[in-house]
Amino acid sequence: MSVNACQADGILTSADVTFVTGDLQPYLAGVLTREGTAWKEQGAPWWDPLEMLGAYIDGGKALRPRFCYWGHAVAGEDASTQLLLQACAALELLHAFALIHDDLMDDSDTRRGRPALHREIAAQHRRRGWAGDPDSNGRAMALLTGDLAFAIASRLAAALPPPAFTVWRRMVDQLVLGQFLDLAGTARQDRSHEVARATTLLKSGQYTVTGPLRLGAALAGVPHLPAGLSRYGDLVGEAFQLRDDLLGVFGDPRRTGKPVGEDLLSGKPTQLLACAADMLPPRGQALLARTGTAAFTGADAAELAGELARCGARDRVERKIRDNVRVACALVNRDGLPPHVAAALHGLAMAATARQQ
Amino acid sequence: MSVNACQADGILTSADVTFVTGDLQPYLAGVLTREGTAWKEQGAPWWDPLEMLGAYIDGGKALRPRFCYWGHAVAGEDASTQLLLQACAALELLHAFALIHDDLMDDSDTRRGRPALHREIAAQHRRRGWAGDPDSNGRAMALLTGDLAFAIASRLAAALPPPAFTVWRRMVDQLVLGQFLDLAGTARQDRSHEVARATTLLKSGQYTVTGPLRLGAALAGVPHLPAGLSRYGDLVGEAFQLRDDLLGVFGDPRRTGKPVGEDLLSGKPTQLLACAADMLPPRGQALLARTGTAAFTGADAAELAGELARCGARDRVERKIRDNVRVACALVNRDGLPPHVAAALHGLAMAATARQQ
Repeated sequence: MSVNACQADGILTSADVTFVTGDLQPYLAGVLTREGTAWKEQGAPWWDPLEMLGAYIDGGKALRPRFCYWGHAVAGEDASTQLLLQACAALELLHAFALIHDDLMDDSDTRRGRPALHREIAAQHRRRGWAGDPDSNGRAMALLTGDLAFAIASRLAAALPPPAFTVWRRMVDQLVLGQFLDLAGTARQDRSHEVARATTLLKSGQYTVTGPLRLGAALAGVPHLPAGLSRYGDLVGEAFQLRDDLLGVFGDPRRTGKPVGEDLLSGKPTQLLACAADMLPPRGQALLARTGTAAFTGADAAELAGELARCGARDRVERKIRDNVRVACALVNRDGLPPHVAAALHGLAMAATARQQ
Repeated sequence: MSVNACQADGILTSADVTFVTGDLQPYLAGVLTREGTAWKEQGAPWWDPLEMLGAYIDGGKALRPRFCYWGHAVAGEDASTQLLLQACAALELLHAFALIHDDLMDDSDTRRGRPALHREIAAQHRRRGWAGDPDSNGRAMALLTGDLAFAIASRLAAALPPPAFTVWRRMVDQLVLGQFLDLAGTARQDRSHEVARATTLLKSGQYTVTGPLRLGAALAGVPHLPAGLSRYGDLVGEAFQLRDDLLGVFGDPRRTGKPVGEDLLSGKPTQLLACAADMLPPRGQALLARTGTAAFTGADAAELAGELARCGARDRVERKIRDNVRVACALVNRDGLPPHVAAALHGLAMAATARQQ
């Protein structure tokens, strides 16, 4: 869902959307245009990864820049500073890097209802009749496009003041570690609550909400988030990933833009499956024990999804999302934030966790 | 070839080797150990990518840190400063990132005579009987290990003083752009001298020699390399890549640790093939036109290698390597560098370009 689509749906029409569409998107386009000029100056006759990156960034919900915007606003600062734009551009590029590489790691076919970037490049390769294997080249070029996004993001972030860069470092570390736990937990078919929770918190929670809030605040000269706001970030961030996990199993693929069941087929270390390991009856346990193996089919995934609903694991995760958001919003109310900031944070918490895509 | 092997061979036993084995390697081990501690504190029960990265870094020639060391020495500075160590650690991690991702992009089986990292992880996956497809997981985990190396490198580099960071930025940009031209030139089967030369200079030349020299000098407070030294870097860097291209076609796989012919099978935009496009007789031209297609076999690659030797393209590239090194060493002599620095730069030029692996 693009920011414009959010606006059209009437879900979010606050100052952060204006910031993203009016300031951030043109700024990002400028960053990529300057990069293209530098490439031409160095003798590159082609620059398709920059065009692909531009199109890629344009299609997202821009959640991280919007949390960063409100983290900055908490300190009562004027939001349209150059440094805030730079930080938010770095966040969007970091996220593009994360998604492009994530789709490669998971060998996913789709993202945001469109072919994943490596599939799109493979299709382009076929259309143009290029040499070599289209799928291999699609993967190679997408990998490099992810590296490029990370390189530009790192460069933008390195120019931030030291307190903001410290927050950035931590976000990148948590993103990589969370992604590692996701892969390693899948390979080991780990069903512990500890690994599922750490993966959720690191991979999405802190990286998606608390980190961007903290980054915005650091740029406004506030080195530590108010305790309530920091807790809000972790709670909403965790709920964001829980929603993602539920949509991956029970979502409508026409809305999520991703086929359902991929997480079950690979047996990802999600909190949903950690709950399931406690709650499933024997038939479901037998299915769960086979996730991640070649013997586990799409029909098994559909059956396991049914079992997850029947045994109450799905409800337990839904309840945790609701509880997290309720507690998070109450904490924001207690933190004495300006009313328009508190209202925006309520809205963003809903947008991040009640979404259907 | 590890630094220790270089030493045992008597090829290089100068101060840069002592720096790499005595200072840099323990420093890098410390960086990875601290990273592991941070992972444990954040709830990670596993940390295999850090161990893999440690083993990976230990096996290289450490050329880039050694050029950086001498770039620093040009300014007559004491070499064992913390910042130099930090910069050289960043260089080694950046190179690990580049090689790991390069092997993924090229779908290579081996590196430095051992299985490429993604193959090694796939083999470990099989041995441990983990869930999911071993090859997919090998690729995913290697991709992430590359990302991790880049993340730590970027973090170390961001803490360097601004003039050094500017050099770093440029190196990263050139590395990514060079890699892009390599992939895009392969897909388009481009045989122009312009693209081959830009790819060589960007991907290896400036990234391997001029960039590290400049980084070391910047750390010693010398913002611009003496003109002769800068030219030395570009010439030796280009010759380094030309040697790589020749070894990829004519090398001894037992010494290079890579199968020969991969570059021919994919039809990479190398200067060797750009020369070949001018010099090959009709039979060789017909072979060249089929590189990068499914119709081009290993036997064709062997035949094309023979044609490349017969038509003089191989000799032309050999001559260019010799000319580059000769001119580079003469420039160093003219630049009035301290004699031990000039001698070391001569030795490194030979090590980088006369190698058989």
